[in-house]
Amino acid sequence: MNQTSTSLTKALKILLTVAFLLLFAGIAGATELDHVVDVQKYNRAIHIMAMLLAGFGFLMVFVKKYGRSAVTATYLLVSVAIPLYILKDSLGILGGSGSEIDSLILAEFAAASLLICAGAPLGRLKMGQYIFLGLLFIPCYVFNEWLLLGNGFGLIPSGAFVDTGGSIVIHAFGAIFGLGVIMTMTTKEEIDLPVEADFTSDRFSLLGSMILWLFWPSFCAALVAPEAVPHTAINVILALSGATLATYFASISLRGKISAADIANAALAGGVAIGSVCDLASFPQAFIVGILAGALSTFGFAVLQSKVENLLKGIDTCGVMNLHGMPGLLGGLSAIFIVDGLNKGSQITGIGITIVVAALGGFVVGKIVAMLGRKKLSYDDIDEFEL
Amino acid sequence: MNQTSTSLTKALKILLTVAFLLLFAGIAGATELDHVVDVQKYNRAIHIMAMLLAGFGFLMVFVKKYGRSAVTATYLLVSVAIPLYILKDSLGILGGSGSEIDSLILAEFAAASLLICAGAPLGRLKMGQYIFLGLLFIPCYVFNEWLLLGNGFGLIPSGAFVDTGGSIVIHAFGAIFGLGVIMTMTTKEEIDLPVEADFTSDRFSLLGSMILWLFWPSFCAALVAPEAVPHTAINVILALSGATLATYFASISLRGKISAADIANAALAGGVAIGSVCDLASFPQAFIVGILAGALSTFGFAVLQSKVENLLKGIDTCGVMNLHGMPGLLGGLSAIFIVDGLNKGSQITGIGITIVVAALGGFVVGKIVAMLGRKKLSYDDIDEFEL
Amino acid sequence: MNQTSTSLTKALKILLTVAFLLLFAGIAGATELDHVVDVQKYNRAIHIMAMLLAGFGFLMVFVKKYGRSAVTATYLLVSVAIPLYILKDSLGILGGSGSEIDSLILAEFAAASLLICAGAPLGRLKMGQYIFLGLLFIPCYVFNEWLLLGNGFGLIPSGAFVDTGGSIVIHAFGAIFGLGVIMTMTTKEEIDLPVEADFTSDRFSLLGSMILWLFWPSFCAALVAPEAVPHTAINVILALSGATLATYFASISLRGKISAADIANAALAGGVAIGSVCDLASFPQAFIVGILAGALSTFGFAVLQSKVENLLKGIDTCGVMNLHGMPGLLGGLSAIFIVDGLNKGSQITGIGITIVVAALGGFVVGKIVAMLGRKKLSYDDIDEFEL
Repeated sequence: MNQTSTSLTKALKILLTVAFLLLFAGIAGATELDHVVDVQKYNRAIHIMAMLLAGFGFLMVFVKKYGRSAVTATYLLVSVAIPLYILKDSLGILGGSGSEIDSLILAEFAAASLLICAGAPLGRLKMGQYIFLGLLFIPCYVFNEWLLLGNGFGLIPSGAFVDTGGSIVIHAFGAIFGLGVIMTMTTKEEIDLPVEADFTSDRFSLLGSMILWLFWPSFCAALVAPEAVPHTAINVILALSGATLATYFASISLRGKISAADIANAALAGGVAIGSVCDLASFPQAFIVGILAGALSTFGFAVLQSKVENLLKGIDTCGVMNLHGMPGLLGGLSAIFIVDGLNKGSQITGIGITIVVAALGGFVVGKIVAMLGRKKLSYDDIDEFEL
Repeated sequence: MNQTSTSLTKALKILLTVAFLLLFAGIAGATELDHVVDVQKYNRAIHIMAMLLAGFGFLMVFVKKYGRSAVTATYLLVSVAIPLYILKDSLGILGGSGSEIDSLILAEFAAASLLICAGAPLGRLKMGQYIFLGLLFIPCYVFNEWLLLGNGFGLIPSGAFVDTGGSIVIHAFGAIFGLGVIMTMTTKEEIDLPVEADFTSDRFSLLGSMILWLFWPSFCAALVAPEAVPHTAINVILALSGATLATYFASISLRGKISAADIANAALAGGVAIGSVCDLASFPQAFIVGILAGALSTFGFAVLQSKVENLLKGIDTCGVMNLHGMPGLLGGLSAIFIVDGLNKGSQITGIGITIVVAALGGFVVGKIVAMLGRKKLSYDDIDEFEL
Repeated sequence: MNQTSTSLTKALKILLTVAFLLLFAGIAGATELDHVVDVQKYNRAIHIMAMLLAGFGFLMVFVKKYGRSAVTATYLLVSVAIPLYILKDSLGILGGSGSEIDSLILAEFAAASLLICAGAPLGRLKMGQYIFLGLLFIPCYVFNEWLLLGNGFGLIPSGAFVDTGGSIVIHAFGAIFGLGVIMTMTTKEEIDLPVEADFTSDRFSLLGSMILWLFWPSFCAALVAPEAVPHTAINVILALSGATLATYFASISLRGKISAADIANAALAGGVAIGSVCDLASFPQAFIVGILAGALSTFGFAVLQSKVENLLKGIDTCGVMNLHGMPGLLGGLSAIFIVDGLNKGSQITGIGITIVVAALGGFVVGKIVAMLGRKKLSYDDIDEFEL
């Protein structure tokens, strides 16, 4: 019996050793897998960076004499927004994001919203004023993000506001903020000054548009769990395809001819609008949201824009209200019809808060930015660049 | 003994618990790893999307007055092809792809083939006709794909046709289909009308070319297992490098000077031709296939194109026969020399089927598309776009 | 007791079986995870390819009449460098990299250094001379890489030279080599010939710049372990942001107006300089390194370049000394202040070796390349391209 007991004890010791080794291997594997998942987020972060610089930057190159400035402004806005947001996050102000890679992606989202905002007064700010705009915009953005997603002031329960791809927090916020800014940052002369494109500036703008379109799935799926990435990606592509087709038909119906600006911009409205429910919609729902967004956005460019500009006495250079404002609101509201068990009150409250914070913030920031003076020649590189 | 037995039983219980926990952890880890592998496919899907839009789209911007149209047509073709293929796949028509991410990648392959096809009649179709072309092309593509890869009608055993990166199924099919279309979609006036580029349209076209070149490894490795991705990628890059060098030497030899169109196009022929065996070739084989493809393609652009156009009484605007047709066939045939244990009969049968289905399909679809009328001004945005 | 023993033995057998199965599953999982990590390196390799072709290629399109040539030269240089380096690595000459994907990334690093070098004499070489330059440059690059990182001649202990993202090995080496080349490859007429940009060539150049900027994190993190990728990426982005802001302020301070060339180039100096310590610096250190690099680079473009060119009696077309040379040296030296426990002697020795090998190599290779003749019309496509 002693012998049996001893041999059994030995066998158990071996087994326990094996089990512990396996346990450690398992833990190690799991940890390494977490790092791998973070690197996949990193890949999507790079895709978003392509959208911020080459995408937004070149979409705005459509202003024919303002290409060097549009690209330089994009560079400066991104270079202000990302370090500033990462600093805030490192200091844990209004909540920290927990991991370095999440912090980077949230910083890119803030930069995207800032670029959208800057599209409204584009061409009427001196280069230094874009930097100043960035420094003032980011705190407002962080405040609204905290109210909607961080349970700020206890207004909206954590997780109750549905906005995975940022239709409201990023797009609508940036666009409405921009509308606030232009109420101050448009002179009387600029009201009547046409914003002109030419054949080459149109081609650059269409290139920027395509770069935005193709990386958009990574924008919406940036923080989504690995198992949800493929479905989210297809939803975004279907929404963009729907918007692209709708834009073509709406453009030719409303104008008689196709407008390159409609194609470059409104085709992207599907990406804006699917943001809120990009991981939750079914394929047909995503396609329909895209069609509605493309049609709405084209209607905005072709019909509404001049009316809104008269109302606000300000020029929305890139038409951000049509591309990001209305389709963003459409996306936020679409959650009410698409998401089962949604806290509808929180969704509507969040949208309302965003409209108020963005409009007020934009109006005040516009007043402050205006104190730094006015650009001499609107929509032209010539007064600020060596030629 | 009872005591011993009891303590042993306890130890065994603990061990079994540990073992079960490890087992579950193992399964969970494996499943999560599968999702991670799918997200890696997603990354390659985004790279392919860059090729479809910014790549193909801007390669076709070389037509100097047709840039807005080329980009818009690209947008519309992609927006028709991908939803349509995903719908087919969701409904399980002629086989389904099993996973959402595979479905997306196969849809992108279909869109690539359609864009190749549309490159042949480019500039002579009204914008709406591109949409119509897409709606008719995709069913033909799906049918051919099913015959070659889905054991359709039992003609080719599953897995017998070797075409990992689509030299035959995607490139040759699209190009030959396009040649069928142009037999109808070229008027007598258009036969003598030069397709002109200028300095800026050339630079945009070279940009599109580079975007195609650099993402090509992801096109070929899209559905390849993780362990085969690095070898496949290097093969594709070696083939593209070989083609690029061969194109330079062939262009200067055949023309006396370098043609920017040769560089923009024939440099890519290595990617087309290595498709069939991209995961199976050795490095030297890949480099040689690339050199042959680049030389053949340049010979096509410099010497054959005008002869083929006279024969078909149609204009191949982008020279898809030279870039995708001949190099695609070269790639499909190269498998016979490179792949050990290849079912040569099936390989040749598959190539033959593709030629017949594509040529017939293209000819019939061209006739149908022609019923929708003719573009007023060939190779010019002006009759369809607001300027 | 026999019964007990038997049942115990059975239980043990089951446990051992489970344990072995788990063990195999663990090993299998780990292996598959290794492949997945390689595919993540592959993704970064594609990002680097975007930098080499669309990035470097289009940054060099700023020369207004030389766009077709700049892009074609980029194609040829990459197509020479990558196969040549992979051949060297396959043959194990001066050390092999162990895995296929590492080999590809190291080949891309070599190609990057070659493109930097070629930026110095850009526009004054015949197309065939770029190929020849590539064939002569790569062996020199490999030799220096072996001395610094491969313990060549036992000069520097393995791992002692800190240069993760290649500030010295890639950037400074390429730039100084290029300065060597231009001492021969500049004629007296070319000394006084202005290198001109125009509005469209500037916009293409800014596009190339942005593509370099946005993919730079993947360049620096290419070979970094998964857990270090996010921190490295943020460091690179902070350095680039710092450089971009510093470039704007330095450009306007030194010139009175903004120079598009400063923005397109010096904004990238942060990426060059952070290379050496990209994975080791803290966020504030990275931001400061970027600011210094951007200011130094702009000072180079605005003030130093003409003095250096007079000294060397050669024209540095792309200003590679300002973008890659000085910021690269700054990066290599920054390790002395930032990296704890650095072998300072080895770091300084490595920098010294690089300067000597690059300067000598460049001077000799320039003499050899000059034997192939001179381009007829500098900075113009016209003598080599069909128009």
